Amino acid sequence: MTTRTNVILDCDPGHDDAISIILANSSDKIYIEAITTVAGNVEVEKTTLNAQRICDLLQLKNIPIAMGAERPLVKQSEIAKEIHGDSGLDGPQFPDEPVKKVENIHAADLIIEKVLHSDKPITLVPTGPLTNIALAMIKEPKIVTNIKEIVLMGGGTFGNWTPAAEFNIYVDAEAAKVVFESGVPITMFGLDITHQAQATDSIIEDLATIKNPVAETVVELLNYFKHTYQEYFGFEGAPIHDACTIAYLIEPSIFEFKHVNVAIETKGEYAYGMTCVDLLCVTGQDPNVHFAHVIDQNKFWNLLKRSLSSY
Amino acid sequence: MTTRTNVILDCDPGHDDAISIILANSSDKIYIEAITTVAGNVEVEKTTLNAQRICDLLQLKNIPIAMGAERPLVKQSEIAKEIHGDSGLDGPQFPDEPVKKVENIHAADLIIEKVLHSDKPITLVPTGPLTNIALAMIKEPKIVTNIKEIVLMGGGTFGNWTPAAEFNIYVDAEAAKVVFESGVPITMFGLDITHQAQATDSIIEDLATIKNPVAETVVELLNYFKHTYQEYFGFEGAPIHDACTIAYLIEPSIFEFKHVNVAIETKGEYAYGMTCVDLLCVTGQDPNVHFAHVIDQNKFWNLLKRSLSSY
Amino acid sequence: MTTRTNVILDCDPGHDDAISIILANSSDKIYIEAITTVAGNVEVEKTTLNAQRICDLLQLKNIPIAMGAERPLVKQSEIAKEIHGDSGLDGPQFPDEPVKKVENIHAADLIIEKVLHSDKPITLVPTGPLTNIALAMIKEPKIVTNIKEIVLMGGGTFGNWTPAAEFNIYVDAEAAKVVFESGVPITMFGLDITHQAQATDSIIEDLATIKNPVAETVVELLNYFKHTYQEYFGFEGAPIHDACTIAYLIEPSIFEFKHVNVAIETKGEYAYGMTCVDLLCVTGQDPNVHFAHVIDQNKFWNLLKRSLSSY
Amino acid sequence: MTTRTNVILDCDPGHDDAISIILANSSDKIYIEAITTVAGNVEVEKTTLNAQRICDLLQLKNIPIAMGAERPLVKQSEIAKEIHGDSGLDGPQFPDEPVKKVENIHAADLIIEKVLHSDKPITLVPTGPLTNIALAMIKEPKIVTNIKEIVLMGGGTFGNWTPAAEFNIYVDAEAAKVVFESGVPITMFGLDITHQAQATDSIIEDLATIKNPVAETVVELLNYFKHTYQEYFGFEGAPIHDACTIAYLIEPSIFEFKHVNVAIETKGEYAYGMTCVDLLCVTGQDPNVHFAHVIDQNKFWNLLKRSLSSY
Ligand SMILES: [Ca+2]
Ligand SMILES: [Ca+2]
Ligand SMILES: [Ca+2]
Ligand SMILES: [Ca+2]
Repeated sequence: MTTRTNVILDCDPGHDDAISIILANSSDKIYIEAITTVAGNVEVEKTTLNAQRICDLLQLKNIPIAMGAERPLVKQSEIAKEIHGDSGLDGPQFPDEPVKKVENIHAADLIIEKVLHSDKPITLVPTGPLTNIALAMIKEPKIVTNIKEIVLMGGGTFGNWTPAAEFNIYVDAEAAKVVFESGVPITMFGLDITHQAQATDSIIEDLATIKNPVAETVVELLNYFKHTYQEYFGFEGAPIHDACTIAYLIEPSIFEFKHVNVAIETKGEYAYGMTCVDLLCVTGQDPNVHFAHVIDQNKFWNLLKRSLSSY
Repeated sequence: MTTRTNVILDCDPGHDDAISIILANSSDKIYIEAITTVAGNVEVEKTTLNAQRICDLLQLKNIPIAMGAERPLVKQSEIAKEIHGDSGLDGPQFPDEPVKKVENIHAADLIIEKVLHSDKPITLVPTGPLTNIALAMIKEPKIVTNIKEIVLMGGGTFGNWTPAAEFNIYVDAEAAKVVFESGVPITMFGLDITHQAQATDSIIEDLATIKNPVAETVVELLNYFKHTYQEYFGFEGAPIHDACTIAYLIEPSIFEFKHVNVAIETKGEYAYGMTCVDLLCVTGQDPNVHFAHVIDQNKFWNLLKRSLSSY
Repeated sequence: MTTRTNVILDCDPGHDDAISIILANSSDKIYIEAITTVAGNVEVEKTTLNAQRICDLLQLKNIPIAMGAERPLVKQSEIAKEIHGDSGLDGPQFPDEPVKKVENIHAADLIIEKVLHSDKPITLVPTGPLTNIALAMIKEPKIVTNIKEIVLMGGGTFGNWTPAAEFNIYVDAEAAKVVFESGVPITMFGLDITHQAQATDSIIEDLATIKNPVAETVVELLNYFKHTYQEYFGFEGAPIHDACTIAYLIEPSIFEFKHVNVAIETKGEYAYGMTCVDLLCVTGQDPNVHFAHVIDQNKFWNLLKRSLSSY
Repeated sequence: MTTRTNVILDCDPGHDDAISIILANSSDKIYIEAITTVAGNVEVEKTTLNAQRICDLLQLKNIPIAMGAERPLVKQSEIAKEIHGDSGLDGPQFPDEPVKKVENIHAADLIIEKVLHSDKPITLVPTGPLTNIALAMIKEPKIVTNIKEIVLMGGGTFGNWTPAAEFNIYVDAEAAKVVFESGVPITMFGLDITHQAQATDSIIEDLATIKNPVAETVVELLNYFKHTYQEYFGFEGAPIHDACTIAYLIEPSIFEFKHVNVAIETKGEYAYGMTCVDLLCVTGQDPNVHFAHVIDQNKFWNLLKRSLSSY
């Protein structure tokens, strides 16, 4: 019998969040306790609708979805329409009205409830801004003792939204500070890694050989996402940032890690939202993060291909 | 018939918070919807216990008490034991076990619920750090349209916890930033005013002529509070900071105001937590605060005396 | 025989700087080693020209004038034309071409040279941004041991250029940080004091009874300065900020002081350039500043009147 | 006839600074106008002494040396003894007393003088903290029009002294801000490049085959430097950071560049001193820096070998 990791997917779908959910759902190593949504790539109403749509696509009926923060803790909202389109999930056609319903509870409260009442420690998988996780920790600090691990996409030694900051952290650096200082073990997939998980034309073509509705939707998502990354960032392909988190939970050996200190810059003029990763161990601060620094790309794409073929 | 102001007292009792509750309860112009507590002068378990004790003293059975944030939004906790003693309400003797119970809901959620479901706009009266109010606004931004006014004690053109920052704002400047930028009308009683509401020996002696348990407890509170202000700050008497908020709601003519812009410093090295009050109108920013700058001390003390005599 | 204080007047004339020079020159307690100029109220070419004009007015031939920094250490330049007019000394008519010449040496270098080679420790009297003084200290740190005292106009517990910052410090807060952390004894006249040295109509009328060219020029300066302070700040009169420094050196008993710690905010978003004055002794930092907090206005105006009458 | 580049070497020798001077002196494409020194790797008295020693080694009699800033513009001093040893040039034996003398002028003044009075625009080559260059620009802003280019070692998209900041920029980020905002064309060799110019054992062995006193001293410098980089940073070899600047001036084709915006972080809590390099062009700010991002290592080492062989 497989021991499953019980996860809460806290996300802002978002193309790569969607693929991350699809990947998680296909694995018998992962038990999805809930999907919680946050403002990020687009407004929270839209990221929630997108989560519903993915659940409909996957025919997930029993996983609760809870809508969360519509704004960051302290600063003004910021979204990334340039990258994910107006809906946040541009590309495929989805039915207008989702079948899947949203719970009548705030994401932060669902996280608190799930974590406090779970027999097994819960793994949080944030792939959007960290507002919900921080809100849960601020509202109920006791949850930290029953969180097994936070496996997140965010940050890096360089940025994409500013020269210093990656989008998820930049949008709510104060929330990131709360999470990174919480004492909970953090496994971090930053741009250093996720920019190596780029779906190029040949990879997308390969995935396009898989014939089922889920795989076909993923290919449509990738084609749109690749296009905006080419336009906006001049990239060859689309980095499937968020799916690295789930790939790690399914098959940890895809990645190599360094155990290092990471501090969040919240005061800077130009470096606001930077994750300061102490790779050279010069700060003398204790490690708080397992920082992914190597990815086995073959294994990663094979995993995704197997996953999509399983639908 | 008097039109009552419906208030939620969000506080960290605290000697002056306690007096503020006592003053509010005695007035037929104020309807207390709830008392919510926050970490501040002491830890939130203690400020909550103190709120219960004051309710017991006043035999308040129907006003819900909800415990709130035990830590600030972003930074580490800080308390003011030097000023309020270990219990947060040192001085009088209170029964160990309070009769009054605490609701099973977080302060921020009670604030959201009360504000969302009230027919009349609600006035929030925060007299501690602004964590609960900010949490409520972050979790449910819709509340701002049904908040009539935020009448708060905090800040000033100078500080008491640092040279630039007053304690309530310093403890959670990020929360203050959220509140001051919320668009809700704010009436602010800062140190400029509250240091003029100092209970000196002669004032305390005068109040001591009132013979009832509530007045006697207030006198004990004032004697303790005066003592620590003398010791720690070299003051002559004890400033009844928080009670200015309620005095204003009962008898607005006690104070004079300027309508000015106030911005919260959250980045500074030495001025973190400062309320930057634009008294000379040099910033060109729109006014967001009614800043109390004159107090009629006679009226203030007379009001307090009448209030205590009414018990 | 009077023991004279040997001073370097580092200034940005500026109406009140001009009056400060005039006051200094009239006293047998002060020996002016040099006048150095800095960008501040207006550009440094103009403040230098104004220093020359005042020297011509006073027929000062032997005091060297050196032009200094045309920009702050780190941030962009800022001037205060609104207050001092286009020339920096609007009001009186001055001859176009000054007789007095400017030395061929940078102000910072003249300060270094004078301080290093003086048998007596030198008192620096900065009444503009502190750029020159900081430059001298950075270039030649050894000067600090032969500076007797820095008697400066700047800062305060509130601001005039922003809600938190006074103009001189705001223009170059980094320079102020260098100076305030230098270890040299500092005597500081901030807005708390200088706003009490306001030349109102009745004071100006009184001074106008003195009939000599210097006094008449001062009255013209005051009338212009009063006018802009009324317009821009809504004041009744014109604060003769800078002259407080010289008044103190001539007649110290005009003022009372507190020995406190003052730190300079250089990081803040809203409080950049604030002098954080630890009047309540809450920081635990050692005092580095004698902070003037009481002025005897009668004595001050009498001194100025005697001074002007002596011309 | 070769057209020479007229350079001022502003440095803090420093092992790699020393090699940089040696490289510059061997080329007929470079005319060294002056060597100026700054506090950095060690105190300025020591970096100056080291500059004298290198001049003695190279028998340079006519190049003026001027000692510069012993402290940064605004913050406290910081040195890097761990890397360069107590003398700043540990490894080889040098005679105690240098023959070469130091000019009686501050480095910043020599820079101003040289630049203002040169018929040809001058190229500044700072390989230490940027204090002297900033001081020169602050004192005499007019120099910027006669500086051809600033070719500097500093910064990068990651740090070595903190996770975000490279040593030269970290030591005086305010100076760096002045320089990077000056409008002068900047060619920047940051850690991204200089960490690829690592002298490994095999490279050092190869250079050790050159038999002359200069080459032998360089080999001794490299052996010491390699040793501390292995110990302190866990590197295989010693990055000859500073020599990249001169290699570029001699043989530009060794490097490839991107023309990008670089901003200096001076406010951050964790990222102070970071050079925020806008490689993805997301800031919308104009390019101010030619950022070296590719090095041809073979060409680089061949150049160094040819240079050392020429002595
Ligand atoms: Ca995402
Ligand atoms: Ca309180
Ligand atoms: Ca002035
Ligand atoms: Ca160097």
